Amino acid sequence: MQLEKLVTDFKAYVERIAMYGQAMSIIGFDAETVAPAGGMAMRAKRAGFFGLEIFKMRTSDEMKNFLSELAPHLQELDKETRAMYRVCKKGYDEGTKIPPEKVREFAQLRSEAGDIWVQARKDNDFSAFAPYLQRLIDMKKEFLVLRADEMPEGGVPYDIFLSDFEEGMTVTMYNDFFDKLKAVVVPLVKKIAASDTKIDSGFVETFVDIDTQRKISDLLANKIGYDLNRGHIGETAHPFCTGPEKSDVRITTRYDENAIFSSFYGILHECGHAIYEQNVNDDIANNILGSGTSMGIHESQSRFYENIIGRSLPFWQYISDDLKGILPDSFKSATPQMFFEACNKSEPSLIRVEADELTYSLHVIIRFEIEKMIFAGEVEVKDLPKLWNDKYQEYLGVSSPTDADGVLQDIHWSMGAFGYFPTYALGSAYAAQLLHYMNKEMDVDALITKGEFDKITAWLTEKIHQHGSTYTPNELMEMNFGEQLNGEYFAKYLNDKFGSLYNV
Amino acid sequence: MQLEKLVTDFKAYVERIAMYGQAMSIIGFDAETVAPAGGMAMRAKRAGFFGLEIFKMRTSDEMKNFLSELAPHLQELDKETRAMYRVCKKGYDEGTKIPPEKVREFAQLRSEAGDIWVQARKDNDFSAFAPYLQRLIDMKKEFLVLRADEMPEGGVPYDIFLSDFEEGMTVTMYNDFFDKLKAVVVPLVKKIAASDTKIDSGFVETFVDIDTQRKISDLLANKIGYDLNRGHIGETAHPFCTGPEKSDVRITTRYDENAIFSSFYGILHECGHAIYEQNVNDDIANNILGSGTSMGIHESQSRFYENIIGRSLPFWQYISDDLKGILPDSFKSATPQMFFEACNKSEPSLIRVEADELTYSLHVIIRFEIEKMIFAGEVEVKDLPKLWNDKYQEYLGVSSPTDADGVLQDIHWSMGAFGYFPTYALGSAYAAQLLHYMNKEMDVDALITKGEFDKITAWLTEKIHQHGSTYTPNELMEMNFGEQLNGEYFAKYLNDKFGSLYNV
Repeated sequence: MQLEKLVTDFKAYVERIAMYGQAMSIIGFDAETVAPAGGMAMRAKRAGFFGLEIFKMRTSDEMKNFLSELAPHLQELDKETRAMYRVCKKGYDEGTKIPPEKVREFAQLRSEAGDIWVQARKDNDFSAFAPYLQRLIDMKKEFLVLRADEMPEGGVPYDIFLSDFEEGMTVTMYNDFFDKLKAVVVPLVKKIAASDTKIDSGFVETFVDIDTQRKISDLLANKIGYDLNRGHIGETAHPFCTGPEKSDVRITTRYDENAIFSSFYGILHECGHAIYEQNVNDDIANNILGSGTSMGIHESQSRFYENIIGRSLPFWQYISDDLKGILPDSFKSATPQMFFEACNKSEPSLIRVEADELTYSLHVIIRFEIEKMIFAGEVEVKDLPKLWNDKYQEYLGVSSPTDADGVLQDIHWSMGAFGYFPTYALGSAYAAQLLHYMNKEMDVDALITKGEFDKITAWLTEKIHQHGSTYTPNELMEMNFGEQLNGEYFAKYLNDKFGSLYNV
Repeated sequence: MQLEKLVTDFKAYVERIAMYGQAMSIIGFDAETVAPAGGMAMRAKRAGFFGLEIFKMRTSDEMKNFLSELAPHLQELDKETRAMYRVCKKGYDEGTKIPPEKVREFAQLRSEAGDIWVQARKDNDFSAFAPYLQRLIDMKKEFLVLRADEMPEGGVPYDIFLSDFEEGMTVTMYNDFFDKLKAVVVPLVKKIAASDTKIDSGFVETFVDIDTQRKISDLLANKIGYDLNRGHIGETAHPFCTGPEKSDVRITTRYDENAIFSSFYGILHECGHAIYEQNVNDDIANNILGSGTSMGIHESQSRFYENIIGRSLPFWQYISDDLKGILPDSFKSATPQMFFEACNKSEPSLIRVEADELTYSLHVIIRFEIEKMIFAGEVEVKDLPKLWNDKYQEYLGVSSPTDADGVLQDIHWSMGAFGYFPTYALGSAYAAQLLHYMNKEMDVDALITKGEFDKITAWLTEKIHQHGSTYTPNELMEMNFGEQLNGEYFAKYLNDKFGSLYNV
């Protein structure tokens, strides 16, 4: 009886936090879409104010009491309450282990480092950024000491950062995953580079006006199952998905008049994220469990709709005619096979965000391996540009003539976000793993050819979407499939698909 | 020293309230513009949650203590702190005098009455709405008893509601104002109806596509001085102006392809509201004084830009050529005089929101006189339709064949918003009063002809805008002009303008 009241009070307290998060989601969307430039300073101030309001609730004495009173009863709790405890405990620990003055010092450093990085990239001057990167690394190492209790048994300090961005992931798990991937992808990329088969994607790089592209976005959203009655497609330079809760999940896209695939795949990608959020169970929709469980699992959904479905031949067999009904006459002679090939053109490149499905994870592996070395003390900051280029040469057969397009290309390190990059490879890997198990229960290609995406979404909803953040990624995979992340499926998927496309 | 700390703490507390208000403004704008229909239920829940958060802060024991500790020191406070005290005291009193269960009961009744009113208007069935209107009136009368201490000396209970919507206004003041107006407008309207002069506005009711109209909106905003770097023009069925604070003030408009004046004057109107908000002093921009002081003063700004400027011959002499550069060729032969006449066409009508500048206030007077009778117990609900039509016949020479277009036309009573209507007449009256004093210092017509609106705005900023809510409407007028609201200026303005337009 006393426990019942404790749980009720705890849930009410947590719902308050969720409400604030929902409000911030709307305000964030507004900031990215319609808010005027002149209001930026006050927006930053408000974001800080409400960020602090949420932080205070997450780290309050009230929260501390809830957590310590609930701790002895975890096994008696229903799974949602236990999950809320887990999420709140993580937030409390994150928010209280680092002393406030260190948090402020780090925020200040991040802010300065961000400005310096922008300029250094513009000037192609790594040496200007290097001292800031060094300080960021030093402070993050200090934090690792303060958080030493989070290190998994037999693990290394860097594991703590990996788990920040994908709960439960460790260096050991990533090593195993990336090794399986490298063994297949590195030789495959080299064989494709040497292959005589060339893909011509020139026909999709012709002018298509933006109003026509907006119609395509609506077509795709409707076909794929993104519910626009609970959604909205906005337009921003950097596409994203956000929303307060399942009845209001928005996406954005960016239109390029000379490259329809930019918004075409952008929309499919964000639809994947949005469909995940729209299909969370009603029970948890309105509390802190009502959103996807991790970056990796979230990205698995976006990649599933974008790549597994959207970049498949069956999808083009299904969608080509509808699409050609909207596109200009110049596309009249394009066949499903032509679209399929064009959207899968693969070649090694320097820039991660422009990489194709096959080579993308090599960009990620490089960053992961470098970060491991940084936090194991095996490389010095001044040597990073050379290390970067050596690894690009080894894995992709290319290297950048400038640091701007090399070690300086990503914003993440300037934000101190170490441990983030590897999650970028998880989405595609989880997606291929899901496809493997989905194919055991239904003929996925046949469903795609008929446009029966609702059956695919129903399967994903049962396994993934409905649970929101109730389970960690590892728990979710284990529960559904009896295994955790396994890179083999993605390696095989890539080998089959690109081997056949390029006859290698 | 102790007072200094008290003031600092009070201001910090009040700034928190302002921050929440700012956030709600953005969320409200989002709800009206991009938020998906499916999210409505959760939006309502969130609005309720954050409304309650603000209500709690406004009526907390902490607020009570601030107010009682500050009360003995009011004369020692600077004018901003004193104004904050006034605003907070009003909010505290409003929020605490009615017992919470009565507040809930009233909210429930309003919600039901709103649904019933929609249906009754659709069915043209006043009798269906009458019992709800009766209950709303009865509850509002109960509230008047609980708030009896607010009644001004020598006043009547209805004064309390009048002051809710325009602080400091009383029946006596409105009577004096409306009497001056009626004495001029009622005979003028009758003379115009009998006049041989007819205005042809047909040429402005031709097709103009919406993209062209959007360009006109931007032109007007830029010309008139609405800073779009701190603003945004959205599109909604019901135009409005909102925004968190002076660096982010948005407006919306509605486009009608067959009536350019709909958005043309809508934009000028909302620009007037927005310019007010954008020109508040920096010192108070980010606290609860950072927004316009009252509905009447706010409306005086919108009406100034819409009517005094926008519906003047000098404005058309200034803007016609630029406008014709955007409009289709069919407008080529239109002269400034033709535009001027078309935008001032006046005729008695049944519907308030469609009324012209001249007849509008008669619609308001009718509602004010009826509300006075209701709260003086001089009319019964069942007799309202007849009373309504009799007054329309008397003042406007028209009466509605249906209650739907008669006593049921407005939403306000279904919301229990008694005392609101009369503020609709204040804006134009204050605007004419401002014009009178402005003309003493500069040649307003000449400035308009040259498009030097910045000088007009600078004058209005000095007298009105900069002060935000620091002063009540009466204080503001008294301080600037040595007199409060005076209906004579508006009566004279209307008589001059429409007398000359219609040769009467």
